[in-house]
Amino acid sequence: MILTVTLNTALDLTYRVPRLLPHTSHRVTRVLERPGGKGLNVARVLAALGHETVVTGFAGGTTGETVRRLLSECAPADGTLGDQLLEITGATRRTVAVVDAGTGDTTQLNEAGPHVSPHEWAAFGERYARLLDDASAVALCGSLPPGVPVGAYAHLVREARARRVPVLLDTSGEPLRRGIAARPDVVKPNAAELAALTGSTDPLRAAQDARRRGAHAVAASLGTDGMLALTPQGTWRAAPPKPLPGNPTGAGDAAVAGLLSALAEGLPWPDRLTRAVALATAAVRAPAAGEYDPVLYEESLPRVRVTAL
Amino acid sequence: MILTVTLNTALDLTYRVPRLLPHTSHRVTRVLERPGGKGLNVARVLAALGHETVVTGFAGGTTGETVRRLLSECAPADGTLGDQLLEITGATRRTVAVVDAGTGDTTQLNEAGPHVSPHEWAAFGERYARLLDDASAVALCGSLPPGVPVGAYAHLVREARARRVPVLLDTSGEPLRRGIAARPDVVKPNAAELAALTGSTDPLRAAQDARRRGAHAVAASLGTDGMLALTPQGTWRAAPPKPLPGNPTGAGDAAVAGLLSALAEGLPWPDRLTRAVALATAAVRAPAAGEYDPVLYEESLPRVRVTAL
Repeated sequence: MILTVTLNTALDLTYRVPRLLPHTSHRVTRVLERPGGKGLNVARVLAALGHETVVTGFAGGTTGETVRRLLSECAPADGTLGDQLLEITGATRRTVAVVDAGTGDTTQLNEAGPHVSPHEWAAFGERYARLLDDASAVALCGSLPPGVPVGAYAHLVREARARRVPVLLDTSGEPLRRGIAARPDVVKPNAAELAALTGSTDPLRAAQDARRRGAHAVAASLGTDGMLALTPQGTWRAAPPKPLPGNPTGAGDAAVAGLLSALAEGLPWPDRLTRAVALATAAVRAPAAGEYDPVLYEESLPRVRVTAL
Repeated sequence: MILTVTLNTALDLTYRVPRLLPHTSHRVTRVLERPGGKGLNVARVLAALGHETVVTGFAGGTTGETVRRLLSECAPADGTLGDQLLEITGATRRTVAVVDAGTGDTTQLNEAGPHVSPHEWAAFGERYARLLDDASAVALCGSLPPGVPVGAYAHLVREARARRVPVLLDTSGEPLRRGIAARPDVVKPNAAELAALTGSTDPLRAAQDARRRGAHAVAASLGTDGMLALTPQGTWRAAPPKPLPGNPTGAGDAAVAGLLSALAEGLPWPDRLTRAVALATAAVRAPAAGEYDPVLYEESLPRVRVTAL
């Protein structure tokens, strides 16, 4: 199975309002509730692709219960999405995306997350090690909740490497900086995360720097420009079909699912990138992160152009 | 006991952000969770004043569970706040108040609430009638969730009147218009609600109109101007001590608790108004609706000036 780790799961709320006017009162005209946190989004795409997938990380409180219920409701009926989240005392955070129906713009409000105790973090380490025994690949995704050490991903990368389980890291800031030094197989930053890590706004130069810092491969998602991959097997650009209007939230998570599923199937890098870019394209047309338009995905696959640099 | 009715209870979330900038992403630096809906706020103030109080209305889903848990946590230890909320299938709504830490301004996002089925509404009617048997007064507070008939408050006012239980109505819009026609003992609109009801922005004229429409007494809350009461016993203005900076949310609910507790104790109108205005003043200094500063309340009582008109 493919394992995804979400240490800071979330109850994602999307609120539609006719128009967002600061310092006034708004009647929310539509509420969407989704299981959230990058790793959960990745897992939902993997399961929809037919991969046996297991999620782990932390969930707690009534918000955590809601996340787990929503996750089970959106899992495929064939049981390919397993819930191995560890229950903790603190309550899972909420995120609120306020969509202005007039402009389509989104204002995001993210709670920080529950405090994770040292005991809970240690218990997670045991569960993670056990789950790695059955994993063909693992993705470590998103922010760290309070209480989890900033070097958490470095530790989890080393554990996976020691068991020869390919590991992909998708985070930002100091957890990314520390995690890269532990030599993950793949990192999947976006342009802003790469620039924050390396100080360079040139994606090619920044990706080269990220490899020097320890990443075996860097697959950078560049929005409507597709992806750029620097790997031990070569360097490629993958350009998407003509960009479509839609919701870019979750496109990066769909790309991670594409990279990871193709890696687990033993496909070469150009095929991994094709799948990642086609899924990201199809995710932009879906209403929420963790979802994609399957028809658009199939249509996009032959239209992604991968070029060796 | 005193009964408060909250048909559209809420999980009230207060998010503090450094600065609210539409169409950007925000890290929420502080989250407060409170049991919400006007009638729950009124009940918490009544219980803090030492009155045996019971809340009823609807609660459902994990948000409803959270509201009930928070309500029990903030109830006085002596058990004077009873929970007689009726469990429904739909999930209790959330409200999100986003406080800009720079300006102190609040942006409010209110979910509409769960759909209440005809069966659930009928079950509520039975519970309400049973609770009225032990009630010395009842307050009907706030908005109606979807599915509840717009004439709901008119029906609940008539039920209370038929049992000779004094009934106070605090709502707005069409539910207020219909409810007033059923001849409640007291309505407690604010200036905006009075103006919307009557078309007049002069509070005295508008309150006279509201009495003509059926309210036995009108006690209008006028913000920092205090209250204006038109009653069968006379007309009074109640002016607060010098207004203090703070959070006006919940001041109206504290005023309702003041009116209702003094009514239940058989106090005359000037004393009811004194208590209502002192509580509203003390609520402005509390962090959330349903709470008040007890020292400031005691200090304010002798400083409220009530004038017969």
